[in-house]
Amino acid sequence: MGASTKEGKKIAEKSRKIVKKLIKDKIEGLSPEEAAIIERIVHSTADPEYADITRMSQDFIPKTIKVLRDLEDILVDVEMVKAGISYDGKIKCYINHPNVIKRAKDKNMTRAAAAMEYAASKDFNGVVIVGNAPTALLKVIKLTKSGMGVKSIIGVPVGFVGAAESKKLLTRTNIPYLTTSGPKGGTPVAVAAANALINLTKKGEEY
Amino acid sequence: MGASTKEGKKIAEKSRKIVKKLIKDKIEGLSPEEAAIIERIVHSTADPEYADITRMSQDFIPKTIKVLRDLEDILVDVEMVKAGISYDGKIKCYINHPNVIKRAKDKNMTRAAAAMEYAASKDFNGVVIVGNAPTALLKVIKLTKSGMGVKSIIGVPVGFVGAAESKKLLTRTNIPYLTTSGPKGGTPVAVAAANALINLTKKGEEY
Repeated sequence: MGASTKEGKKIAEKSRKIVKKLIKDKIEGLSPEEAAIIERIVHSTADPEYADITRMSQDFIPKTIKVLRDLEDILVDVEMVKAGISYDGKIKCYINHPNVIKRAKDKNMTRAAAAMEYAASKDFNGVVIVGNAPTALLKVIKLTKSGMGVKSIIGVPVGFVGAAESKKLLTRTNIPYLTTSGPKGGTPVAVAAANALINLTKKGEEY
Repeated sequence: MGASTKEGKKIAEKSRKIVKKLIKDKIEGLSPEEAAIIERIVHSTADPEYADITRMSQDFIPKTIKVLRDLEDILVDVEMVKAGISYDGKIKCYINHPNVIKRAKDKNMTRAAAAMEYAASKDFNGVVIVGNAPTALLKVIKLTKSGMGVKSIIGVPVGFVGAAESKKLLTRTNIPYLTTSGPKGGTPVAVAAANALINLTKKGEEY
């Protein structure tokens, strides 16, 4: 899983077996694609609870795989998410963009939220991945209502302030989503989900 | 906590209060510096269990704060950790360096481990932060025995293969350390600990 050397692959394979065993009962009945995503999240966090709290809309996997196979742009909330994803397409992160920093101050919003507004103003319309900031997820949901053409969202912000609420709201939209219920989530969850999906784009052409 | 706008600071403050309340009993008796680090880890992961499993050697905080205040180099295992740390000094990450990729293949080791060997060959002697790869932590521990001058280690690799063992080994060295017991850990834990310590360097001159 992300490993490139023989030694790294051996470790990843061993980990995969342990994870499969740990969450066997929890992923029974899931499709192989759903199971692959959840296994990777548990592998990356060493936290089997993610098998209980990860949720995907029915259309999430086929729609997201299609967009990623076409190498459409990904938009992320923070640089840590960008640093972790292996993708042949473009990954945009605007949180450190001077316009975003100014906009956040002027409009008294978080930089993560201002970055989403900036992306919308640039007509972003690919896959959005929020691994950290609930305010970014809330902003994207709002922007889609006023015309931002997001195709799919991996929305797994973390924390005790607003994260659970923002993710609940995501499940009530029509946007294909992957999320986690409750306060838990974070950049490794976002990265694991994204890399698992990118991996699935390389396995056959069923989507 | 990392927030730069008024809105961001308000959210961070609210989160800090919730975290303090959640782990109050667990951090009783800790120094304010230890508590600050653990609070930040729980804030970043939304996982109170980190208050139970985070361990520091007695000399870890004063030694690490001194090194970070002097802006000595930080060495990290993966780019995600680098992306998350706010530091005025240099953060080195060699996992994508061509020499490291070649060395890993030639010597059949993980790139994360080869990156540590490469850093040692460059006479690295600051703070090492391992947020992902147990093999990197094992390698650094080994290298210190043959002369690598590491001043302090934040060693919180994650996973079911080797992570717990590598962290246990760290606690048996003479290197000042912060770690987590068991398989849990990861890049947000590493980043939270590092940023909390960097923040402490700015608070008075007691060290």
